[in-house]
Amino acid sequence: MSGGLCSVRLSDDGIAVRIIDQALLPNELKYIELQTPEELFEAICSLRVRGAPAIGIFAAYALYVLTLHAAAKDAASLIDGMRSAAEYLSSSRPTAVNLSHQLNRMTAVAESCGGKPVSEILDRLRNEAATIHNEDIAICKAISEHGLTLIKSGDGILTHCNAGPLATSRYGTALGPLILGAERGISFHAWCDETRPLLQGARLTSFELINAGVETTLICDDMAACVMASGKIDACFVGCDRVARNGDTANKIGTLGVAILAKHYGIPFYVFCPSTTIDPSCSTGADIIIEERSGEEIRSLHYAKPMAPDGVRCYNPAFDITPGELITAIVTEHAIIRPPYEDSLYDIARGVTK
Amino acid sequence: MSGGLCSVRLSDDGIAVRIIDQALLPNELKYIELQTPEELFEAICSLRVRGAPAIGIFAAYALYVLTLHAAAKDAASLIDGMRSAAEYLSSSRPTAVNLSHQLNRMTAVAESCGGKPVSEILDRLRNEAATIHNEDIAICKAISEHGLTLIKSGDGILTHCNAGPLATSRYGTALGPLILGAERGISFHAWCDETRPLLQGARLTSFELINAGVETTLICDDMAACVMASGKIDACFVGCDRVARNGDTANKIGTLGVAILAKHYGIPFYVFCPSTTIDPSCSTGADIIIEERSGEEIRSLHYAKPMAPDGVRCYNPAFDITPGELITAIVTEHAIIRPPYEDSLYDIARGVTK
Repeated sequence: MSGGLCSVRLSDDGIAVRIIDQALLPNELKYIELQTPEELFEAICSLRVRGAPAIGIFAAYALYVLTLHAAAKDAASLIDGMRSAAEYLSSSRPTAVNLSHQLNRMTAVAESCGGKPVSEILDRLRNEAATIHNEDIAICKAISEHGLTLIKSGDGILTHCNAGPLATSRYGTALGPLILGAERGISFHAWCDETRPLLQGARLTSFELINAGVETTLICDDMAACVMASGKIDACFVGCDRVARNGDTANKIGTLGVAILAKHYGIPFYVFCPSTTIDPSCSTGADIIIEERSGEEIRSLHYAKPMAPDGVRCYNPAFDITPGELITAIVTEHAIIRPPYEDSLYDIARGVTK
Repeated sequence: MSGGLCSVRLSDDGIAVRIIDQALLPNELKYIELQTPEELFEAICSLRVRGAPAIGIFAAYALYVLTLHAAAKDAASLIDGMRSAAEYLSSSRPTAVNLSHQLNRMTAVAESCGGKPVSEILDRLRNEAATIHNEDIAICKAISEHGLTLIKSGDGILTHCNAGPLATSRYGTALGPLILGAERGISFHAWCDETRPLLQGARLTSFELINAGVETTLICDDMAACVMASGKIDACFVGCDRVARNGDTANKIGTLGVAILAKHYGIPFYVFCPSTTIDPSCSTGADIIIEERSGEEIRSLHYAKPMAPDGVRCYNPAFDITPGELITAIVTEHAIIRPPYEDSLYDIARGVTK
């Protein structure tokens, strides 16, 4: 059962961040413990930890661990060290808003502690990271409950990339309704896009869904249109990395294509995210920086020999922007938000729940 | 220069079919010679030879070679043997219309020879296969000339799967205008979908285009929407395996999705094929049998370790059907055909050129 998978937590001895090395899945389930700045940075870059909420939790624990090891003499130097560590970690993946959000939240806790003893500040930081973690568990549960109201037993659900327990704390966001449904004996048929280039759908989503007892079929990304045309898909569920105020949504590359196909076939397309993923400072998707990753991810696949000629130019954007008008609803822990998005997303992001 | 690549021909000693083993590209350029029924059948199944026109040429040479080795005593037993060999070869890939078309053409030649000596019938069969080959060279050139009128220097062209020299005899169909343009100093920017699961776009198309001096960028299939949204694509060029009378087109899985995305962004979507690919016996795409291939192609990638959990169910259709209404024009050796397709495609298929 996937509830047993813990994507990220503090190590038992409290001096490292313990994660499942997701780069090795599904061939190997290996837990690793990280404590140097370089290890922690690399784990985010190389997608050993991935999924916006999991990255946020990871960042909180990572910043605590780095601050612990820095062994600052006083509050002022502790805060200085935290700020530069936060800046360093934040640069590992520019698109994920949860990363900077949780780093800022941790830094603010230390700043609010003023002249308190270092040991007390460290206690507060550890507690804050645990709170962030527990909040995510509650948020995923609430998102899953909302999502479950959008589908009925027997539905075919297409999903792209991975937004399950491995990407979060428990249940996940977009996969949450399917996993919560499975716990309650409601059966869905999940169709997983493999999600090139890094195959999160093949490696992680199908792994999690099978573990959770959800009927699952894996397809290549270019098969989604054919499956929709055959009438097997009743809804599309995806996670996201950042939502602008107009509903424009950055998510794993390929999401935009799924949204356009869904519109063509009249299939509802739902985005799932914690409200922290909504960025009120972005008015549209044009404000979102898209990370471009190495072309080797395309050329060499994962674990494989080169699949394309030496020196072929590759274009490898890691995310795309799905315009808000292609999104049927955005599902957060507070509510299911439908267009027009402007005011309602702004309220949710500011914590105003209706 | 890709003109130097010869995807299929009779071996120098005239007793085998010589092909580039396309399953090994781009890591190894290896020519193999095949002469047993099992070798010839397997080469089609395993995509060592692929692309509808190349399969047609291959089938003609293969049927000649098998008839030669059968060493029939008289015309009647030669024809009997040919019919069963043709039936066997035809069953290797059900979707490709050129396969059965050229097998029937070869068999008809033998049948028309009545009581002639076996040696004379064999001469006629070898000549017919060479004629089929030379016709394809002329057809690809004519298709390329037509296609070149649809685009202008500097255009970005998105292509899916492979419809170049390797899939045909020379120039190719959908890639023909780009390769012919390159020979004439006209520069285009080709964007190649890698085309999962078997990566023909990564392995073959980018290999051929770079060889031909065409500026080429390789992307994953799920990146096409993002590239279209960025305004970089002026037209989509694809080949096809079978066209129904209403314009519905069977081509490599993923073609349908590209057509829907192109429609969404107002980008013209062109299908390229020899007129033999039009099947007047199919009134719509619903009449076309779609080959479903092994899920292992998805699960294990090409050359790679398993990428998905053991036992995960995969759905692996090899082709999809793009409705005629999503196709801006169909480019054949005779003409560029625009909607409504019904009568004009029927005429082209029957050899009536206007």
